[in-house]
Amino acid sequence: MTKKTKVNAAILIIGNEILSGRTQDTNTSTLASWLNSIGVKVCEVRVVPDEEKIIIDTLNLLRKNHNYVFTTGGIGPTHDDITAQSVSKAFNRKYEIHKEAYRILEAYYKPGEFNEGRQKMVWMPENAELILNPTSGAPGFSIENVFCLPGVPSILKSMLGGLKNKIVGGEPILSLTISLRTVESEIANSLTQVQEQNKDVEIGSYPFFHAGKLGVSIVIRSENQSKINECNLQILKFVDEKKIEVVER
Amino acid sequence: MTKKTKVNAAILIIGNEILSGRTQDTNTSTLASWLNSIGVKVCEVRVVPDEEKIIIDTLNLLRKNHNYVFTTGGIGPTHDDITAQSVSKAFNRKYEIHKEAYRILEAYYKPGEFNEGRQKMVWMPENAELILNPTSGAPGFSIENVFCLPGVPSILKSMLGGLKNKIVGGEPILSLTISLRTVESEIANSLTQVQEQNKDVEIGSYPFFHAGKLGVSIVIRSENQSKINECNLQILKFVDEKKIEVVER
Repeated sequence: MTKKTKVNAAILIIGNEILSGRTQDTNTSTLASWLNSIGVKVCEVRVVPDEEKIIIDTLNLLRKNHNYVFTTGGIGPTHDDITAQSVSKAFNRKYEIHKEAYRILEAYYKPGEFNEGRQKMVWMPENAELILNPTSGAPGFSIENVFCLPGVPSILKSMLGGLKNKIVGGEPILSLTISLRTVESEIANSLTQVQEQNKDVEIGSYPFFHAGKLGVSIVIRSENQSKINECNLQILKFVDEKKIEVVER
Repeated sequence: MTKKTKVNAAILIIGNEILSGRTQDTNTSTLASWLNSIGVKVCEVRVVPDEEKIIIDTLNLLRKNHNYVFTTGGIGPTHDDITAQSVSKAFNRKYEIHKEAYRILEAYYKPGEFNEGRQKMVWMPENAELILNPTSGAPGFSIENVFCLPGVPSILKSMLGGLKNKIVGGEPILSLTISLRTVESEIANSLTQVQEQNKDVEIGSYPFFHAGKLGVSIVIRSENQSKINECNLQILKFVDEKKIEVVER
């Protein structure tokens, strides 16, 4: 097996609204897909409430164990937005006005609109680097390997472009999906054999129900295209033998 | 403050497909909403890969720290479904054929269709209790305070009804939402004051963009309806003073 540099990350979703079920998190899949595309593998995700001690403890654990940590949520203007002050404490840094962020928001709002509530959004950990926000002005920020992003999905998405130069990924994680008109139990044994013969490739099996019909998507993931191709051939071999139809999804 | 019995839970989402961003998790919000409605507060969610040691370690931590743990995913027939064997190891129980589950699936499938792949789904930790599956036959299971459910959202949903008698919740967590035609920064200070005067009530502020217009939903959560009502009055007072429109969402 060729050794590749593996780069991994954790996602920390901060917000009572996710834990109560009120809000459906979509930032995990947005971030994970994007990170995958630049060669960063997400190894764990945690959702925690808006509670300072929990945020600090969780962040300090995650940032030690992963190359990168991405937080979402809690950087707005209201009392329940406590990410910036919690991150300051986690890093033992002063929580203070970020001068560049102040200038950005002062210019962003009309005269008189940069009120006390909005000014809260320029308080950050000392020496934080800004993550620019092309949608709504208020920047995110990073310190060392921790990147703090907003919770609103459309704003978060618009900020990823500005992060590209700050994240150094490993080999991109490639994937191939084979969708079959079958059920998992029909292919389980054959697929197990393919997995056993290709232990360093990640093979997943996911049932789907699409346009009124059942099927299974097999997803092969690796940094190595030729290994993916090899698994693909082995899978297509048993699929052919079992006369299973390959379908588009 | 009246002391209420608090009942809490953690959710453990098991699956590489969530961490890769391929699949959008929706089970968290389904489970969390349902648990809230029966008086169980979800305190944390973790997403972990299909790796035995990580599943075992995470589960053993979560089940010690919470009244209930709900796992989703990894109980199907394929090689990447390793939840049942991991849970067996976490509890130091044998991983064996569950006789009742065997009878259920034997009766569920047509003669000859209960093949080796499907038979994998009746392997469970010794003395597991079944969670019946009205959608697709294969049951989930529980041991002590841990409830293992499938990853397919429609199947998971259909199994919650059968869980009701097994989960003992505390006081239901009540909530009230006030939606306003404003932006967060306009109300941040006033809302902070309301939160400070009602420290045992959870007040969240969530911006929204609906039908082309910006707004903010304020969510008040507590087990105590009169405390919610009191916060509501205090909020409506400043909303009125600021001449902010209350809207439906």
